[in-house]
Amino acid sequence: MALVVQKYGGTSVGTADRIKNVAKRIIKTYEAGNDVIVVVSAMSGETNKLVALANEMSEIPDGREYDVVVATGEQVTIGLLAMHLKSLGYKAKSYQGWQVPIITDSVASKARIESIDDKNIRAALKDGAIVIVAGFQGIDAAGNVTTLGRGGSDTSAVAIAAALTADVCEIYTDVDGVYTTDPNICKEARKVEKISYDEMLELASLGAKVLQIRSVEFAKKYNVDVHVRSSLNENTGTMVTREDKEMEGILVSGVAYDKNEAKIAVMGVPDKPGIAAKILTPLSDAAISVDMIVQNVSQAGLTDFTFTVTKADLKQALLITNEVAKTIQAKEVLSDENISKVSIVGLGMRSHAGVATQMFVALAANGINIQMVSTSEIKISVVVDEKYTELAVRVLHDTFGLKG
Amino acid sequence: MALVVQKYGGTSVGTADRIKNVAKRIIKTYEAGNDVIVVVSAMSGETNKLVALANEMSEIPDGREYDVVVATGEQVTIGLLAMHLKSLGYKAKSYQGWQVPIITDSVASKARIESIDDKNIRAALKDGAIVIVAGFQGIDAAGNVTTLGRGGSDTSAVAIAAALTADVCEIYTDVDGVYTTDPNICKEARKVEKISYDEMLELASLGAKVLQIRSVEFAKKYNVDVHVRSSLNENTGTMVTREDKEMEGILVSGVAYDKNEAKIAVMGVPDKPGIAAKILTPLSDAAISVDMIVQNVSQAGLTDFTFTVTKADLKQALLITNEVAKTIQAKEVLSDENISKVSIVGLGMRSHAGVATQMFVALAANGINIQMVSTSEIKISVVVDEKYTELAVRVLHDTFGLKG
Repeated sequence: MALVVQKYGGTSVGTADRIKNVAKRIIKTYEAGNDVIVVVSAMSGETNKLVALANEMSEIPDGREYDVVVATGEQVTIGLLAMHLKSLGYKAKSYQGWQVPIITDSVASKARIESIDDKNIRAALKDGAIVIVAGFQGIDAAGNVTTLGRGGSDTSAVAIAAALTADVCEIYTDVDGVYTTDPNICKEARKVEKISYDEMLELASLGAKVLQIRSVEFAKKYNVDVHVRSSLNENTGTMVTREDKEMEGILVSGVAYDKNEAKIAVMGVPDKPGIAAKILTPLSDAAISVDMIVQNVSQAGLTDFTFTVTKADLKQALLITNEVAKTIQAKEVLSDENISKVSIVGLGMRSHAGVATQMFVALAANGINIQMVSTSEIKISVVVDEKYTELAVRVLHDTFGLKG
Repeated sequence: MALVVQKYGGTSVGTADRIKNVAKRIIKTYEAGNDVIVVVSAMSGETNKLVALANEMSEIPDGREYDVVVATGEQVTIGLLAMHLKSLGYKAKSYQGWQVPIITDSVASKARIESIDDKNIRAALKDGAIVIVAGFQGIDAAGNVTTLGRGGSDTSAVAIAAALTADVCEIYTDVDGVYTTDPNICKEARKVEKISYDEMLELASLGAKVLQIRSVEFAKKYNVDVHVRSSLNENTGTMVTREDKEMEGILVSGVAYDKNEAKIAVMGVPDKPGIAAKILTPLSDAAISVDMIVQNVSQAGLTDFTFTVTKADLKQALLITNEVAKTIQAKEVLSDENISKVSIVGLGMRSHAGVATQMFVALAANGINIQMVSTSEIKISVVVDEKYTELAVRVLHDTFGLKG
């Protein structure tokens, strides 16, 4: 007998019939002799509807009250699922965040889980009940309802699995698992059986949308095995787990891309200390996140400073950067929206020096020019012209032997 | 400076714009120097939508989980109203039932309020905040969410007013107050300025839908002045309050009617002790409420036993009564759906013997036959043919001098 945590997202519980399907899967796991804790999201579309209502009431809705409103989505789902399980003759009990309780900090709409009291859940499990917990929500020390941000139900599930030392945390979604790249643009993409927390973190931040980044951080911190799998079939999915020797043998485990960034280049800046800070500080003051940053070697005392922001932030970022450019006597500010970031991720590249070279050679051989490069210990990202995105992904997928 | 409790129903908060209108009224009261506690219902239509979802999940939804689902309606309204007040620069804070807390018994969907802890609300008021409380909901001793039944927000408001010894409890609705009778069928109906708890209780149970009965019981028990008024204008409404000398001088304060009952007559029953119990016990076992009961004087050892049930219960009640009729050797069972109950209510009739006579004479003079009669200390109800309902109401309204 194992303790299984299952998380079902908004699409899996989007209608009364889908909730009934989810119930079947839960019952199967329970009937196999397992203790089962289920974490659910709001029915798909509900959270957007609640957010729209909030935006009608206030231009910038108050954080505490916003969380009171949006937390109702998950509350509806837990009640519906629990009553259906009961109508089929099973013991089931729903828990809102405050009823567990799941204690978070007080940052409204982006709260972080601080601790989970396992007493109530353990008692219900001991009583033979299937435990249904509302994802995405918690309660702060002052008794306010908080929410964890979009995708927060993943984090709820992993945190509960950690607090109750569950044997496995299953994240049900509408894909079969984590793929070597997006199957929509590369037919040869292959489901990965096992991937390390660090690789998953890089893939999640590079544009793969399978898991919320924070849920992976949590899984890594508490060593929770996360099984990402489909709610539409019985296939084994991908296990996100701690790294092992086998994983290190694989040079590259995945190729990710992100078309959502734009590039800003400040050209001909007099190369003095403090230039980067002068350019970036006003951007962070305006809550604009900068992703890749490249500063070229200076020639004749002048340098070019290039960085990327999300396309949504481009307009505001350009306004700010143009202001700064005047004060630091830069020659001009250029921008380009037609770019794409393509990345390779793999534990193996830590111990293999030639991976970057191999990547650049392959791209060059296919006529793809590299505009910017950024690396970490286990990933290499390049910025290319947006029109080459799909080609670059396929070339790299092939180059690093990822096809099935 | 007074402490004012205001309750707004589902229609008053049915859209974003209506919530903004309610906010204006709240601000006016607050700016006048009052402490304000607001109790709100779910946006109109929301509760029905949630009930429909629950019914899709289970034929007889589990009570605990049903309450988890339907309580979300009020939770959405408190968050929206509080964030709007904050966006206008006012301190406001929302409270769910469990956050107050409002402690109830554990009867799901029909819970009764047992106690209200005033500590949190008082602290918020002292802090200068407008306090927004979700109506209709509470929490039981075991930490389960409970709801109070349809119209329960009235009771929430009165109970909070009692717990905090508020100066007044204002119930905002879509009518101007309590009328001497239904203005839709009697043009001369007049708004009552003041009415006693007992009269209001009789009127509420006799078909007037202005206030939930339990809220009036609560108001009576704790001596809370309840001001029933319109959210659409500034008119003074009706004060429901303890009785005074002035009220006793008024013979009849209102005429009510109820077209929702049907009559069942068990004819030719051998008149032995225990007949009434034999007929009524199987009905109460089937959770069918019997309203009026009349047993005629027996003739030649036989008697007729007549009672009323709601039209919705008639079919099932007839099946049961026909079974019983056989075992007690009754001659036959008759039923009639085309009836109506018309009632007069007034504290003054306690000390005036002739009120019933006056009522019967007036009805007879207009050719209206009386089928059944039932009385309490402060009300007289008669059953008449349904087609005479409007006429009977107008005749009685006129007879007892209720027009303006």
